[in-house]
Amino acid sequence: MSTGLREYLDGPHKAVRDVVRDGLAANAGLLNAGLDLSRDEYRDQVLAVMQQVTAEGHTGRGFPKEFGGQGDLGGFIAGFETLAFGDLSLMVKAGVQFGLFAGAILHLGTSRHHEQYLTDAIDGHLLGCFAMTETGHGSNVQALGTTATYDPATEEFVVHTPNAAARKDYIGNAARHGRMAAVFAQLVVGGETHGVHCLLVPIRTPDGESMPGVTLSDCGPKLGLNGVDNGRIVFDHVRVPRTALLDRYAQVDAEGTYSSEIENPDRRFFTMLGTLVQGRVSVGGAAINASKVALTIAIRYADRRRQFSAPGSAEEALLLDYRMHQRRLLPLLARTYALHFAQAELVDEFVRIFGSDGTDNTEGNTDGEGGLGDRDEHDRRALEAQAAGTKSLGTWHATETIQMCREACGGAGYLAENRLAALKADTDVFTTFEGDNTVLLQLVAKGLLTNYRESFGKLDPLGTARFIAAQAVEIAVEKTALRTVVERLRDAVPNRNDTADPDAGLRDDAYHCGMVRFREEHMLAGVARRLKKGIDAGDDAFEVFNRCQDHVIAAGRAHVERVVLEAFLAAVQAAPEGPVRDRLKELYDLHALATIEAERAWYIEHGRLSGQRSKAITALVNELCAAVRPHADELVEAFGVPGAAVDVPMVVPSQHE
Amino acid sequence: MSTGLREYLDGPHKAVRDVVRDGLAANAGLLNAGLDLSRDEYRDQVLAVMQQVTAEGHTGRGFPKEFGGQGDLGGFIAGFETLAFGDLSLMVKAGVQFGLFAGAILHLGTSRHHEQYLTDAIDGHLLGCFAMTETGHGSNVQALGTTATYDPATEEFVVHTPNAAARKDYIGNAARHGRMAAVFAQLVVGGETHGVHCLLVPIRTPDGESMPGVTLSDCGPKLGLNGVDNGRIVFDHVRVPRTALLDRYAQVDAEGTYSSEIENPDRRFFTMLGTLVQGRVSVGGAAINASKVALTIAIRYADRRRQFSAPGSAEEALLLDYRMHQRRLLPLLARTYALHFAQAELVDEFVRIFGSDGTDNTEGNTDGEGGLGDRDEHDRRALEAQAAGTKSLGTWHATETIQMCREACGGAGYLAENRLAALKADTDVFTTFEGDNTVLLQLVAKGLLTNYRESFGKLDPLGTARFIAAQAVEIAVEKTALRTVVERLRDAVPNRNDTADPDAGLRDDAYHCGMVRFREEHMLAGVARRLKKGIDAGDDAFEVFNRCQDHVIAAGRAHVERVVLEAFLAAVQAAPEGPVRDRLKELYDLHALATIEAERAWYIEHGRLSGQRSKAITALVNELCAAVRPHADELVEAFGVPGAAVDVPMVVPSQHE
Repeated sequence: MSTGLREYLDGPHKAVRDVVRDGLAANAGLLNAGLDLSRDEYRDQVLAVMQQVTAEGHTGRGFPKEFGGQGDLGGFIAGFETLAFGDLSLMVKAGVQFGLFAGAILHLGTSRHHEQYLTDAIDGHLLGCFAMTETGHGSNVQALGTTATYDPATEEFVVHTPNAAARKDYIGNAARHGRMAAVFAQLVVGGETHGVHCLLVPIRTPDGESMPGVTLSDCGPKLGLNGVDNGRIVFDHVRVPRTALLDRYAQVDAEGTYSSEIENPDRRFFTMLGTLVQGRVSVGGAAINASKVALTIAIRYADRRRQFSAPGSAEEALLLDYRMHQRRLLPLLARTYALHFAQAELVDEFVRIFGSDGTDNTEGNTDGEGGLGDRDEHDRRALEAQAAGTKSLGTWHATETIQMCREACGGAGYLAENRLAALKADTDVFTTFEGDNTVLLQLVAKGLLTNYRESFGKLDPLGTARFIAAQAVEIAVEKTALRTVVERLRDAVPNRNDTADPDAGLRDDAYHCGMVRFREEHMLAGVARRLKKGIDAGDDAFEVFNRCQDHVIAAGRAHVERVVLEAFLAAVQAAPEGPVRDRLKELYDLHALATIEAERAWYIEHGRLSGQRSKAITALVNELCAAVRPHADELVEAFGVPGAAVDVPMVVPSQHE
Repeated sequence: MSTGLREYLDGPHKAVRDVVRDGLAANAGLLNAGLDLSRDEYRDQVLAVMQQVTAEGHTGRGFPKEFGGQGDLGGFIAGFETLAFGDLSLMVKAGVQFGLFAGAILHLGTSRHHEQYLTDAIDGHLLGCFAMTETGHGSNVQALGTTATYDPATEEFVVHTPNAAARKDYIGNAARHGRMAAVFAQLVVGGETHGVHCLLVPIRTPDGESMPGVTLSDCGPKLGLNGVDNGRIVFDHVRVPRTALLDRYAQVDAEGTYSSEIENPDRRFFTMLGTLVQGRVSVGGAAINASKVALTIAIRYADRRRQFSAPGSAEEALLLDYRMHQRRLLPLLARTYALHFAQAELVDEFVRIFGSDGTDNTEGNTDGEGGLGDRDEHDRRALEAQAAGTKSLGTWHATETIQMCREACGGAGYLAENRLAALKADTDVFTTFEGDNTVLLQLVAKGLLTNYRESFGKLDPLGTARFIAAQAVEIAVEKTALRTVVERLRDAVPNRNDTADPDAGLRDDAYHCGMVRFREEHMLAGVARRLKKGIDAGDDAFEVFNRCQDHVIAAGRAHVERVVLEAFLAAVQAAPEGPVRDRLKELYDLHALATIEAERAWYIEHGRLSGQRSKAITALVNELCAAVRPHADELVEAFGVPGAAVDVPMVVPSQHE
């Protein structure tokens, strides 16, 4: 059965996933390299493996054929996700080089940049950085302090770090290997600031010396990912030619005239940033796959390790036969499947919008102002929200799952040789990078509140309140619409508080979907109402927003939970009939009911669940854990994690003695 | 204010705490030693600092004066807890040497062992291991596989590892420094096995060579605590003299006659193990103090770092002014205070029972069978449950709090220089060692169910079910008693579901205590009822237990939550009137309501909370976060964590540039 299930999980990019699996198995030595090498040796070994993989031609998969790529963006993402089965420093290093650095050139540059740099970036000859984050600014990218001031006398930009807070920080590839950086800076032309733009700035000579005016330093040891050389960059009036500006969305001519086809600066900024959504798509997928590695290890261990003997039995009981152990691991297993399918749906949508070679399906389909047409703009914002949401839930899931797996393996889980330590340490920052999860969920909620209108395009959460003030009438309309939706749902999902049988319909997928949809819509309507009320009362905009920030974030999360659940259900329905679908349906039920159980207080508070029915759900989650348990080994087998990553001493002692 | 608060927190052992604080400040270099030294160098440096501290005479504080100690057990624990403000490898190494190894000699040995070894163990000349855990057995100590077989021909014990599962594993001090081990093994005398006993076995020569028949190996790198040399020990028919047996509770004479004043083998085993409760007391306190370090860093960072500007303000808002940030950090701050006072209460009780020099206040007060008298036996079991519960909640709290602090500090929190990385990695195993938390909570629940009766003394969770079968009548009686309690509580805590004002009485401490006590009693009665029902139906005992294992653990947890809440309330009531008490009362309210909020689903399900009142509690938690926020800096200042541990670059950049 696990073969059929694995094929179904691997989906259309199975071949790429298998290539990466083979590559990881061939480079299994890297899995333990972080343990005994010095930090710089480990970094160099990660680079060496990356360059070897590059030489085999895999890393250009997502790029246009004319620059040495293969025009297969979906395969590229699938391959990247699969890298998360191996050493995560290698994955992150590759993400920095091919996703972020080469991606910025592809998406923000024009043919001149593509021709000059893309082939070298894709084949790893030109190692680069993505220099966005600063010491003083992470989430609020619009407030970056680095400046790039145009000097028409020499036709150069002067890149400068005006203060300590504007220092580029945590930049992958900066401490040791990067030779060039895609630098995000406030563009100043003719004394006027035009907001954040991106320029290519050489930071090291081929010999590894810092370029004049560039001060590079090392972020030093980190909790994990120590095979990646994160560093800091300070610019002291560094001059680069005018052509260094990645000028797809805005140009500066020789005389110093700034122009952009997108007139609204906010809209321009978010259009540029939007092209970089691939990073979030990739990190979410990587986090979900890292969870699979941890679960494979912990579930196999629990299916072998015994503790405490049952009465009348000489043999102790298997850990996985204990209810508490099932409760700790199996709902997380079900949720990993759910997120897997939600991620697959996201990647499909990403490829649909960006095209199979990553160069935009929307090219030429503009609004006559240089921006995207309305429909494409809408699709882009929807994709960004979907990527932000999946990234948030996927990365928090990884943190929770790997922690639980470590605890479930006791002291053995704490030893580096059993790999949970590295998984835990390496993935921990996933909840932060490519967007802090709490900020991302605000972005999700904001998108829902405004129906993705361009006038609401600021990441700044305070913009929410200001916008609401301006759109009070429209919000009122939306509220009415929502109320209708809620009433419709109420009819579709009969309140069973009075039913004699509290179990009735608990495994009915229409019930699950109705519940999570009700929660999403209700929370969203509540946020809109509270925002409007505060604005109507003339309260301070920050106060209005801040008073319901927790509610905003919870609403964003409720939306993503609904999307994930529906993706899982769709995957169950599309699965081959027979054991594969049966197994998935069981896991789906466990995931759906565990999701409702986790928010049962809210459902009861809002009259959607009686206390009795709530208890019935808890009992059914327990039953479903017991039903899934006999298949647990097969279910992790189906993830197809290479043996080198999971055949650790505590699971397969014989291989190590 | 923070001075008064700090004095109140420091309590009677303030002087000792200050001595340790000064010592940590003087050895601040150790805080970063783990980052760049090799593993062995780091281990040696930890040993060097430990020996220096030992030379200053601090480590013997808890031991009898005749062996170089100071007879101040409370001060010893306070000092140990305070070590958690510094490098945690040092703390754990000291815990292994002085708490576990020297503790085993003190509690399980007799005068011959005390005179021969205790002074050397206390002054650090004799480095030792506590060799209990095996590869195949952690929580189930009674099933250890190592054997110690008496050979009357030579008057020796033969210590042996019969199979791979019986290998001693994760043993601190074993990989590099330990010269002797307190080895727990099945004692075999005259062909009869008498259960687990402890013997002193030399494992290394003074030159560091393994003793003949002893194979030592290294557990290798770990997620954290890499300054501690955890290793493995395999014995191949190693001979030690008869006097190597720590024979306080059982003796073997020259001819090979085994005798013990405690006839029941289970009771003997748990009496021996019970003397080692100090480890759990210490780890819980250390975890709570590690949480203080993380909160000090994260709250000071949040009170300095700005992000996103408020409308009409040029300056961005402080992280700590965002509701979500308050929500993430401040209930954890309040809970840290609660656990601090619960821990202080536990230490007082520990010292009351063990005496100020650790040699038992109960000596001579026996039951005539060599065991403890009934009252002392009851107090011991209660102390063990209290220690197990506080350890569980304290260590899970540390894991959660440090994780949240890391995320709240974003990318900066991921850098080793900001110390959250080490705190996270080092404390992670606290939920496992000195007893896995889930197993410990079962121990707590078991104690409550049986009113600490000796006949229910097996750690084996399956014993629960067997016992219940034998005691069915008594359980029925207890149920009746419980029902009375529950009814009494119901009267004392009016159900306010119908009250017009859902906020009424929410800050009344009698309400909080009534709620948590109701939950505890109700859950416990439910467990008893379910166990009895299964046994009455003749179901398989493992099944009966396993079906409500999650319920058993939740009941144990509910009990500890109640104890913690009451300890905090008692501390508020005993605090000096004025700002100290006011501040504590506010934190107490936040803790109490956040605790009820976390379980609000249960309270609603059981008719103790209406949906409306539940929402009012959530709103009040938000308000209390806002009320605590202006004092947050002062509240972490009062923990008195030495500057060297918390003045990290992201908080105090000027000191590092």
